[in-house]
Amino acid sequence: MTESLQGWERRDKPATLHRRFTFDGYRQTRAFLDAVAALSELAGRHPQNISFGTTYANITLEAADAAGFSDSEEHFAAQIGALTESRG
Amino acid sequence: MTESLQGWERRDKPATLHRRFTFDGYRQTRAFLDAVAALSELAGRHPQNISFGTTYANITLEAADAAGFSDSEEHFAAQIGALTESRG
Repeated sequence: MTESLQGWERRDKPATLHRRFTFDGYRQTRAFLDAVAALSELAGRHPQNISFGTTYANITLEAADAAGFSDSEEHFAAQIGALTESRG
Repeated sequence: MTESLQGWERRDKPATLHRRFTFDGYRQTRAFLDAVAALSELAGRHPQNISFGTTYANITLEAADAAGFSDSEEHFAAQIGALTESRG
């Protein structure tokens, strides 16, 4: 999973994953947030906090178990990150 | 407008309006955020920051003119507040 969690910052106590996404404008930011909301619906889980403005969204995921993230929680983070990845 | 801005906290430098909305669960929080997004689309303006988690959304509006809020900006705040008001 390490590879796919590129871009996420790990913090401890409590165990969280944090990542800042930036966009060209409000429309792109909204499209990303809508995608995260739809993904959350599918995954049956959601970020503990999302803070967003015109051109950014900061996402925080918190581990359910203080000891650390489960594979499925890390997979959810990777899925969020994958939303913004293009094939270049 | 004063009456309809009940619940909003005014701050200066820069001029902002801030309000915390709380909900029973993620589904209600999401419904509120979707309504704010739709309202933003209609109004052609949007909050400068929204920070939300499972049961809350903190909304910050910033005045375009540092001197203070225009009537239309205050109206937007009142419209957001009105989304959560029931007739009781």
